[in-house]
Amino acid sequence: MTDTVASPIPDLLSRWPALRPEERVRQFRLLTRDLREELFWGLPSPDQAELLAAMPEHERRTYLRSLPPDDVADIVQSVPEEEREGLMALLDDVTRGEVRALLAYAEDEAGGLMNPRFVRLRPEMTVDEAIRYLRLQTRRTETIYYAYVLDADQKLLGVVSFRDLLAAPGDKRVEEVMERDVITATEETDQEEVARMFADHDLAALPVVDEQGRIVGIVTVDDIVDVVREEATEDIQKIGGMEALDLPYFETGFWELARKRAGWLAALFLGEMLTATAMAHYEEELAQAIVLALFIPLIISSGGNSGSQAATLIIRALALREARLRDWWRVARREVLSGLVLGSVLATIGFFRIVLWQMFGNVYGEHYLLVAATVALSLIGVVMFGTVCGSMLPFILRRLGFDPASASAPFVATLVDVTGLVIYFTIASLVLRGTLL
Amino acid sequence: MTDTVASPIPDLLSRWPALRPEERVRQFRLLTRDLREELFWGLPSPDQAELLAAMPEHERRTYLRSLPPDDVADIVQSVPEEEREGLMALLDDVTRGEVRALLAYAEDEAGGLMNPRFVRLRPEMTVDEAIRYLRLQTRRTETIYYAYVLDADQKLLGVVSFRDLLAAPGDKRVEEVMERDVITATEETDQEEVARMFADHDLAALPVVDEQGRIVGIVTVDDIVDVVREEATEDIQKIGGMEALDLPYFETGFWELARKRAGWLAALFLGEMLTATAMAHYEEELAQAIVLALFIPLIISSGGNSGSQAATLIIRALALREARLRDWWRVARREVLSGLVLGSVLATIGFFRIVLWQMFGNVYGEHYLLVAATVALSLIGVVMFGTVCGSMLPFILRRLGFDPASASAPFVATLVDVTGLVIYFTIASLVLRGTLL
Repeated sequence: MTDTVASPIPDLLSRWPALRPEERVRQFRLLTRDLREELFWGLPSPDQAELLAAMPEHERRTYLRSLPPDDVADIVQSVPEEEREGLMALLDDVTRGEVRALLAYAEDEAGGLMNPRFVRLRPEMTVDEAIRYLRLQTRRTETIYYAYVLDADQKLLGVVSFRDLLAAPGDKRVEEVMERDVITATEETDQEEVARMFADHDLAALPVVDEQGRIVGIVTVDDIVDVVREEATEDIQKIGGMEALDLPYFETGFWELARKRAGWLAALFLGEMLTATAMAHYEEELAQAIVLALFIPLIISSGGNSGSQAATLIIRALALREARLRDWWRVARREVLSGLVLGSVLATIGFFRIVLWQMFGNVYGEHYLLVAATVALSLIGVVMFGTVCGSMLPFILRRLGFDPASASAPFVATLVDVTGLVIYFTIASLVLRGTLL
Repeated sequence: MTDTVASPIPDLLSRWPALRPEERVRQFRLLTRDLREELFWGLPSPDQAELLAAMPEHERRTYLRSLPPDDVADIVQSVPEEEREGLMALLDDVTRGEVRALLAYAEDEAGGLMNPRFVRLRPEMTVDEAIRYLRLQTRRTETIYYAYVLDADQKLLGVVSFRDLLAAPGDKRVEEVMERDVITATEETDQEEVARMFADHDLAALPVVDEQGRIVGIVTVDDIVDVVREEATEDIQKIGGMEALDLPYFETGFWELARKRAGWLAALFLGEMLTATAMAHYEEELAQAIVLALFIPLIISSGGNSGSQAATLIIRALALREARLRDWWRVARREVLSGLVLGSVLATIGFFRIVLWQMFGNVYGEHYLLVAATVALSLIGVVMFGTVCGSMLPFILRRLGFDPASASAPFVATLVDVTGLVIYFTIASLVLRGTLL
């Protein structure tokens, strides 16, 4: 990352998440007034709140008031209940009203992302009038990629990008140059959906309208980049087999982190206990053919691995809308085949591995060929089961209204382990009956 | 997702990835001219290329020419070598030149994302002159969030957002209102880094400069939303234990998909084979105390699960720059403790589970308390090892210049399985010596 006029801020911003709180305040104090502002504006809301808390009252007011209402709302939401009113008190009445309105929305909905300040135009204005009018409005509006054309009762009639307004002949009327076919969100639209709309349409801003089609605010693309990363982080952490964190790794308290991990881990552990139960059923077979025990980890882990591959593949496809709920059957057919192919690959490797080892020193006894066959067949069965299980679980979770990303690699592995053992010992009892069993 | 003037496009765009190619062409033909354009402009480059291929020559030219050079370059890059010249031939000479220049850059670098058309201003212009001048320029430039102020030899002196230009008094000079402290990227800046710069600074556009500080183009935020999702998808697929895909799930050929999965799966399988080797060493102990075999899946999977939790946690923290390479020691200390806590939780559950089962029917023999102790102690050891292993692996990979995301859940699980067995049987031989062993 270069910088024509070398500024310390870009580098400082990227190092920020890794700095300890006291170090952050120290760094902030070292900066000139201008650089402080540049840094402050570049930080995510929780970090801004952290700095505000360390400021003297008068400074806190200045910095808080330098932010647009939607950013203020994010900060207020990121501080403990009891500190919120104190922050609100620092705002001017107009902004306080706007912030209160924004706080009414869930943080992860369009309403929670939107900015109530945007550029309004009337349809009958000429382009020249519009541009002159915009030059007055811009002082109190955040963005100006688009101007929104409203009728007398705030209903959204159309949108005109600044670019088109400038490109149009000055004497045309706004309604002649505006785009009437406007893509909008409602206050309740989920932020993941909002992000998808931005990506699908390469939008710079998206108007939010109420039931009556009245515009209540706009969401701008710079907020969306953060949303997309946030959502991806949540998915990745769930796939890793834990609750998603609300804060960065180092900012999450030790016990908070332990709790979020222990929950899933214990749940998986309880599920995994079934393997011990299953194994108990096969204790006899094991006693007779101890050699079977040697391949248990190999076989169940192969099922788990192929399962977690399939699961993550489908989780992401669902998240990006590449696959829909109704595609489950198409996926199932495809994954059965994949499972067969992948299973056969591992089976082949496994079979020859056993035969090879047998050549150097009699490890697996006289019936080593039957053992090899048992392992190979089990691998095909287990991998097929793992692949189908892993690819279907996200669909089932989505269907039941849960987040598909909860179909974590460990979750799938646990599911597959128990079944893997059953498959293994069933095949063993068939192949080895009369010889080892 | 609502739409004030109902348009079929938003819905069609979100369904697009799940449609079969022939179905896509059919849908496209059904649309009116305007809607076709709206759809076409909203699609990602590979889908645009697909539609172009299905069009008659004259139509193909019109649609291709309706796109800015950076989008054309993406399309050209997404078609097979032999078709590229054919597409280039459809462009006007100016654009063809610009596209050729863009094709020289790697697709995942700033140079490959940038648009060579942007708004230029001279420092000595007045604000009024600048606005009048912009109204002429906009016709051939893509975006107009910012205007870039250049000296005679194209060196970047400063940037002025359209908003500030409009807010400024008309008689001021551009150099008086422009921001001199410009954040820029070079042509080689990696797209992941570019995305981070957009997120850190809430940018709408980012100028790309060469070694001499001459501006060569701009990257706009609407391209970045796609980049962020792309990068997240790659990471998620790697975490799932497979090579990242270049295309959506359904568009990736069956054998291509199988190959990308089989590679990792086979590699993991070869690693997992060590478990069979390890187990062979303990065959005697197993024969003497078959009860030990019952808990093998439970123990190794607990190690794998805690390991994949830690790995995904750190992978994401590294990707978001929340943790840096030099933080490895801080992380290690923290994860050793986490491992101890998490291990103890599982150990407690495991211990009482065994004691409980023993009460209902003598499942684990007279020495069940020793067995329970063995399992409990092993769980603590295995989970600690898994957690440390999983959290350090991403650092090691990053240090060696690999992508930390390759520290997939299955990869970590495999690493931990072998060691888990060793830990288990070592503890067993210590605790059970003289009784079962």
